[in-house]
Amino acid sequence: MAHSQFDLVVIGSGPAGQKGAICAAKMRKRVAVIDRAQMIGGVCVHTGTIPSKTVREAIFQLTGNAVRAFYGDSYRGKNDITVQDLAFRVKAIVARETEVIRAQLKRNGVAVLQGAAQFADPHTIEVQAETEKITVRADHILVACGTRPARNSQIPFDDKRILDTDSLSSMEGLPREIIVVGAGVVGLEYASFLAALGMEVTLIDQRPTLLDFVDREIIEALAYHLRQMGTTFRLGEKVTRVGIDSQRDRVFAELESGKKVQGDALIYAVGRQANGDRINLAAAGLEPDARGKIKVNEHYQTDVPHIYAAGDIIGFPALASTSMEQGRLASCHMFGARSEHITELFPYGIYTIPEISMVGQNEEQLTAAKVPYEVGIAKYAELAKSMMLGDETGMLKVLFDRNTLKLLGVHVIGQRATEIIHIGQAVLYYGGKVDYFRDTVFNYPTLAEAYKVAALDGLNKL
Amino acid sequence: MAHSQFDLVVIGSGPAGQKGAICAAKMRKRVAVIDRAQMIGGVCVHTGTIPSKTVREAIFQLTGNAVRAFYGDSYRGKNDITVQDLAFRVKAIVARETEVIRAQLKRNGVAVLQGAAQFADPHTIEVQAETEKITVRADHILVACGTRPARNSQIPFDDKRILDTDSLSSMEGLPREIIVVGAGVVGLEYASFLAALGMEVTLIDQRPTLLDFVDREIIEALAYHLRQMGTTFRLGEKVTRVGIDSQRDRVFAELESGKKVQGDALIYAVGRQANGDRINLAAAGLEPDARGKIKVNEHYQTDVPHIYAAGDIIGFPALASTSMEQGRLASCHMFGARSEHITELFPYGIYTIPEISMVGQNEEQLTAAKVPYEVGIAKYAELAKSMMLGDETGMLKVLFDRNTLKLLGVHVIGQRATEIIHIGQAVLYYGGKVDYFRDTVFNYPTLAEAYKVAALDGLNKL
Repeated sequence: MAHSQFDLVVIGSGPAGQKGAICAAKMRKRVAVIDRAQMIGGVCVHTGTIPSKTVREAIFQLTGNAVRAFYGDSYRGKNDITVQDLAFRVKAIVARETEVIRAQLKRNGVAVLQGAAQFADPHTIEVQAETEKITVRADHILVACGTRPARNSQIPFDDKRILDTDSLSSMEGLPREIIVVGAGVVGLEYASFLAALGMEVTLIDQRPTLLDFVDREIIEALAYHLRQMGTTFRLGEKVTRVGIDSQRDRVFAELESGKKVQGDALIYAVGRQANGDRINLAAAGLEPDARGKIKVNEHYQTDVPHIYAAGDIIGFPALASTSMEQGRLASCHMFGARSEHITELFPYGIYTIPEISMVGQNEEQLTAAKVPYEVGIAKYAELAKSMMLGDETGMLKVLFDRNTLKLLGVHVIGQRATEIIHIGQAVLYYGGKVDYFRDTVFNYPTLAEAYKVAALDGLNKL
Repeated sequence: MAHSQFDLVVIGSGPAGQKGAICAAKMRKRVAVIDRAQMIGGVCVHTGTIPSKTVREAIFQLTGNAVRAFYGDSYRGKNDITVQDLAFRVKAIVARETEVIRAQLKRNGVAVLQGAAQFADPHTIEVQAETEKITVRADHILVACGTRPARNSQIPFDDKRILDTDSLSSMEGLPREIIVVGAGVVGLEYASFLAALGMEVTLIDQRPTLLDFVDREIIEALAYHLRQMGTTFRLGEKVTRVGIDSQRDRVFAELESGKKVQGDALIYAVGRQANGDRINLAAAGLEPDARGKIKVNEHYQTDVPHIYAAGDIIGFPALASTSMEQGRLASCHMFGARSEHITELFPYGIYTIPEISMVGQNEEQLTAAKVPYEVGIAKYAELAKSMMLGDETGMLKVLFDRNTLKLLGVHVIGQRATEIIHIGQAVLYYGGKVDYFRDTVFNYPTLAEAYKVAALDGLNKL
């Protein structure tokens, strides 16, 4: 039985774990990362962000979705897109990202221990590998062991026609009609991908509205475009039973309202369960909540000060981007390194087709706070670049203070939204005003130019 | 003979003229814009920026250039791309952009006079329309009449196989081998489009180096990628004769060094002649230089204070983006409106495949100024998003002061370069430091994330 002493042991090698480990290694600490074999990179690389965003780009490019506006709805860059087309691409990128992460950990001298981790005491962790169990001790521990789909025992998953988002790649062929249960970010992303592929999608959620942290105008635009692509929404509807009608060879979902929805397959995308229940936190003197999550303070410290937690395991916003930053900040704090903390200005990116991104405050928040704001809007259809890209549906919206002109928030739907949001984020960070966008030269043609159009629109209203 | 009095008459309806006119109209001035019939929008819309960037996007999407990295060089989104495929798209966008501009001028109450303008005296302009001549008088005049290709009388243009960039759309089919004379921005852009279409391109320029205002590392990357796509460079070579070898049905260019280059067609893209020689400037008491350009002060005023000039007619940088801003600033100045002037921080966008953009200073300038800078580099190949987009060739470079960490310049080559440059531009404007990028949360996956990777790389060198 091996035995080692580290300055930091990280449980989980997803975005939070990786960045936390590397940050500590750069401070010349002895660091080990524990993850299960085949899971280096975490859910992000293997079943989450990377595969879903890769599928998204592949669908976007292969279907010619980008140029549909020119060549009509019948245009397809490649006809008869198959599961293989998509899987091929995902496999290549997952393999490469895993290698990138492995190489980066190695280059920084971080030990990688393969196996399932469990606390033995507050400073000791047992790693159960395939054939042996090793024990490691550490001064500090970063828990970044992520989440898994919350499997509802009432749903008869068969991983072929009734699937969760982890088992999507085992889907048999591409169905024509599909039911998606759960209209959170993940459910919406997959629903939009499948709709872009030409499937008829029925999206069911028991909540009456979509993503209530997103600007209403943006969400309504998303709903409109999804409907245009053939999506049916069943909101405020609770699923009571899911099954397969073997006579008609169809999947069905029965709703509390008495409706029955049918399709060729069903994806269950309701909620995720954090893995805090799987690492014997009790031995460390900690307890996860009912959903397996761990509570931390503003430095990402748990109630046991030398144990930190970061990433999806601590809950909202549970984005790869914010998790990376949390991991890095946790390491900085535990080893006393100075760190700027501008995480509260994080952007939110939703990779639906069309994509959405936002930073700062939204109209609902500003109204509640009684801030006298004004709105400036640029429709992508007004931009030369959007015409060239074939995206006539996008929109960028700036919110600013009527009196001081201070920028308060930016909300975008449309191509490259997740890229150009960072322009507004920088202006927000520096406390800039909306007239910055009016007075700045933007490359022409670009989508970034939308900021100028929106600023002029807003300023003209004063 | 009609006769009218205006607060402002604008000669030319390109980016500078349009924005100048609209800015004045928003200040409730009586404004007229003069342009030749079929030329509303100027060179930008009809033969310059809009058609070339539309062709670029069409080639980029139709050839599957974006996804070549995955499917190999043999992958084509659409086989056998024709001149018609490209012309179809250009025609649609030119028509629409013209309409957008026409509608915008109308909505703002700007009179549009069709015909060729000539000064009669410093306040009077004659407009020669097809059947009549009208005379207008104005308190202020904005000259924004742009440029035309500089036609060298020694080149036997036939607009079929020996063309300038204005006559490209009359090309007969897509040649297999093409000669491009002139490796300025326009020559390079077209050379890269044609190379992306699979043509063998020979690019000739008498200057020994490419675009000397661009960072050397970026330009070398561009040259490398163009060579990878089958481009041959003949730099430091002067063309002495161009002709058609009718026996072999080939176009040829003889070089001073004795070499002879052959191809199926030749595009002559050397320099542009400003139209200052065509509007009888003498009657206004002004004189254009030998290339037809007009001299202005920092407020875009000519030597005759009530006559302003903006856009390509005043020379460098001659970009649609900067021209718009110049037109707006000229109008603000002539009518005493306050205006911020942050044009010196303009970004430069070069729409080659791969595209290039930059803002702030470059290494050569900083070295000459003895500023102790450090460099941080992100290779696109390190970014998850680039892998998804299939762009493994891009690079983003940040330059910052070693002592103060102040950001000094950003240089990018690769997909979306012209969009993401604006993130760096905002940080530069606010005097931000490179650690802003380290401490900021970027959406994942994005290309914008390159800023973070580059900042970490640079900071690790200190």
